[in-house]
Amino acid sequence: MNKSPNSALNEKIISTKPIFSGKIISLQIDTVELPDGSKGEREVIKHPGAIAVLAVRDGRLLLVDQFRTPLGRCELEIPAGKLEKGEDPLEAAKRELQEETGYSAGKISLLHSFYTSPGFADEIIHLYLAEDLKQGESAPDEDEFLEVHEATLQEVKRYIAEGWISDAKTMLAVYIWELASHTGKYGHE
Amino acid sequence: MNKSPNSALNEKIISTKPIFSGKIISLQIDTVELPDGSKGEREVIKHPGAIAVLAVRDGRLLLVDQFRTPLGRCELEIPAGKLEKGEDPLEAAKRELQEETGYSAGKISLLHSFYTSPGFADEIIHLYLAEDLKQGESAPDEDEFLEVHEATLQEVKRYIAEGWISDAKTMLAVYIWELASHTGKYGHE
Repeated sequence: MNKSPNSALNEKIISTKPIFSGKIISLQIDTVELPDGSKGEREVIKHPGAIAVLAVRDGRLLLVDQFRTPLGRCELEIPAGKLEKGEDPLEAAKRELQEETGYSAGKISLLHSFYTSPGFADEIIHLYLAEDLKQGESAPDEDEFLEVHEATLQEVKRYIAEGWISDAKTMLAVYIWELASHTGKYGHE
Repeated sequence: MNKSPNSALNEKIISTKPIFSGKIISLQIDTVELPDGSKGEREVIKHPGAIAVLAVRDGRLLLVDQFRTPLGRCELEIPAGKLEKGEDPLEAAKRELQEETGYSAGKISLLHSFYTSPGFADEIIHLYLAEDLKQGESAPDEDEFLEVHEATLQEVKRYIAEGWISDAKTMLAVYIWELASHTGKYGHE
């Protein structure tokens, strides 16, 4: 089921006005017909999509510290990056893990795909579980400045409490990891 | 710790160019000085912030089905809404829960605050746990068309597998709920 069985909630796009097209995101205003026949406007961000990687090695989560301009500070997150044009998400996950942390995964599988802000953006993140990690050389992009960290679940919980970890995808990965420590398996399969 | 101890990763904003200011979001381009002294540009979305509510009643999660323009389809999410100007997040959580589902909470507490897309947006969501729920009348906003659902953990997992639930805040809430079913407590306290 990819949509609600309740089509009475559906909106219909009447027109789209492009506002901005940038290197990463673009912005448009959609004029929509609401379920009651009246009109509304929606501000919509288009994003190429991204991947993120849940990678645990010897009981430690791989994390990347990096400056986030919208937050005005550094933030500790699981390895992640946006999709390049036409790139397969699985290949992107392998590439980003290797570029950002130096590790390659003997086994990698999709846990979940989710939208980060469905109210105003179409950004989707494909979250992968990377296992059988082998250490290599990291090679961040030219305009990427980051530092790799490895942290136990107790440390990660402290970083969340202290606000150094404060993004949705990383918290989701932490809860998936924590639940797996109780159930013995990742995700819902 | 609200920021990394590693100030060598810090960027410095040199100038900000406003691009768009809308009803909900605004867009600006920040020119930054990178850690190596070179310059870069960052596309940044400003958002007023939002709240979301994890509310379980008789073993069923309260959910709201609503059309999401960026996705072009309906999506099942926990009750949520953006902050009104100057509004206290706790009051917003009580208000949205009541408006969207009709339920009021005898007890409500903050679980986590998190950024949805720290790479390009400053949107923060404050996730509350609502307990001791009492049924009343729902009163959605004029341009809000939604339908309330209540689902068991098994049903919620199926909705995730089928793609009807596919947003980060709702998945995070589901994992927090699922972990609580193993540990007997919500969040990390």
